[in-house]
Amino acid sequence: MPKTYLVTGAAGFIGAAVAARLIALGNNVYTIDNLSTGYRNCIPEGVHFVEGNCYDPAIIGQLEGVGIEVIYHIAGQSSGEVSYENPAYDLHTNTLSTLLLLDFAKRHKVKKFVYASTMSVYGDQDVLPVTEQAVPQPKSFYAVGKLASEQYLNIYHQLGVPSIALRLFNVFGPGQNLQNMKQGMASIFLAQALKEGAIKVKGSLDRFRDFVYIDDVVEAFLKAEIFDLQCFETFNISSGVKNTVGELVSLISRQFPQELTIEVLAGTPGDQFGIVGSSAKAEKFLQWLPAIGIEEGINTMYNWAKQSF
Amino acid sequence: MPKTYLVTGAAGFIGAAVAARLIALGNNVYTIDNLSTGYRNCIPEGVHFVEGNCYDPAIIGQLEGVGIEVIYHIAGQSSGEVSYENPAYDLHTNTLSTLLLLDFAKRHKVKKFVYASTMSVYGDQDVLPVTEQAVPQPKSFYAVGKLASEQYLNIYHQLGVPSIALRLFNVFGPGQNLQNMKQGMASIFLAQALKEGAIKVKGSLDRFRDFVYIDDVVEAFLKAEIFDLQCFETFNISSGVKNTVGELVSLISRQFPQELTIEVLAGTPGDQFGIVGSSAKAEKFLQWLPAIGIEEGINTMYNWAKQSF
Repeated sequence: MPKTYLVTGAAGFIGAAVAARLIALGNNVYTIDNLSTGYRNCIPEGVHFVEGNCYDPAIIGQLEGVGIEVIYHIAGQSSGEVSYENPAYDLHTNTLSTLLLLDFAKRHKVKKFVYASTMSVYGDQDVLPVTEQAVPQPKSFYAVGKLASEQYLNIYHQLGVPSIALRLFNVFGPGQNLQNMKQGMASIFLAQALKEGAIKVKGSLDRFRDFVYIDDVVEAFLKAEIFDLQCFETFNISSGVKNTVGELVSLISRQFPQELTIEVLAGTPGDQFGIVGSSAKAEKFLQWLPAIGIEEGINTMYNWAKQSF
Repeated sequence: MPKTYLVTGAAGFIGAAVAARLIALGNNVYTIDNLSTGYRNCIPEGVHFVEGNCYDPAIIGQLEGVGIEVIYHIAGQSSGEVSYENPAYDLHTNTLSTLLLLDFAKRHKVKKFVYASTMSVYGDQDVLPVTEQAVPQPKSFYAVGKLASEQYLNIYHQLGVPSIALRLFNVFGPGQNLQNMKQGMASIFLAQALKEGAIKVKGSLDRFRDFVYIDDVVEAFLKAEIFDLQCFETFNISSGVKNTVGELVSLISRQFPQELTIEVLAGTPGDQFGIVGSSAKAEKFLQWLPAIGIEEGINTMYNWAKQSF
């Protein structure tokens, strides 16, 4: 049965991928996007586009009466680094937006509200791989705002909006923005390598991350929607595999026939040193398991990126 | 040595008391207040008053160049109940305001930023009296926004703004707003009793709280300012004494010559069932100890309130 969705941020990497999949499945999809980092031509064909900010009641108001049944709230600036440049904007785009969309969801009796949260809420943890039981230690403005959004979901769940948050780890893959040099570790490195034959790493090569492929993330959103919630829940969407930044750089370098220059620069504020997540809870309750490993993913992404240049 | 302070919310209960004390000590005091729940005539004489919202950059901008050395951020709507009526306003007044004032503090190299946080950040806890080590479980929009503010303070401390948060428990005493029936348990009950000879309790009489007297709270702000911070810290400002709501009602009733009617109504959303705080950390590091117990405090407050009617 086709449904009517609101997928915020469908001009961006993850939102576009999720919206495309929902359209392919025959659904009716609306999006709100302010095109601040996304592109109009990235919005999948067939998606109804409302241009503006998700924290603007007048913009959300344009969706009154269209019959939204499910909301995937994916829009929002997604760089910890950028959140330091304008913390107030970050609070609007990542937190106020959630509050207003939850209010919309409540008024329209939306059946499920799926939120794109982040592994950033954990900050630096002693016990890894981190589980959802860990106490969040948000280190950046971005992380604070995302965590507050999760807490709003928890309250709204009690007010009758079935809410679920996916804590996305380092999402990568085809479709990631190759122009934005402040967002997406894999896409930044790949774009630098393609453009300049050099990779500039902001921070230590020993830092480590948990890379999860875009197709797997899309699958997680679909599974989150059908999960029957008793209470508000968060799920790690992670590969469970620890890769150092140096390993990512090597994997990317290996795609190129020529040798790349690697430069290590100063780190960015609020950056986590290392994080890797357990997705055991998502496996148990959502029957979600990542299918694509980092080697295969980077290879596919490289072939896609090469054609975009 | 007199200093120049910004005490936000000096038209309100706690802000006015703190500002009055700073003025009495010979300091130069500015305030920002939007008079949404406070009153112009509550602002202590001698305080420079800027009328407006603390989340409005143009209002904060009026304090450029006046030489603010210390900020006490006390303004903000302070009712969990009211935060359900307009969560977005709550986020502005309690969270965006903090962010903008921290930015101001950073640009002006303010020496100390003391934040009025709340016991609400704890939500319902298994282990009582609660210490600052407990994992916050915010239950209301108000609590979410206050907790996010604390996390912003933590980040700004690392950015060079010496920041400290006081988690205020149930503050009561002379000066508390007797008109506002949604804020301040002791003042609501006392005002009802004086006006109608009846106390209407929203929620169980078995709920319990930790009541702390206004003069003690003012003292805590002064001590927080002189505490030499190595890192961002939070402190419970609590009496450590558990009193049920029923006990508070009895204490207030006892002040009246006539018998009062007690009515128990439905509870309010996001209300904590019971909380009592350990102030051992404040005693150890701030040398702060509450001096006035609830019996003496309620008696003094009753005598003050009687004259206000």
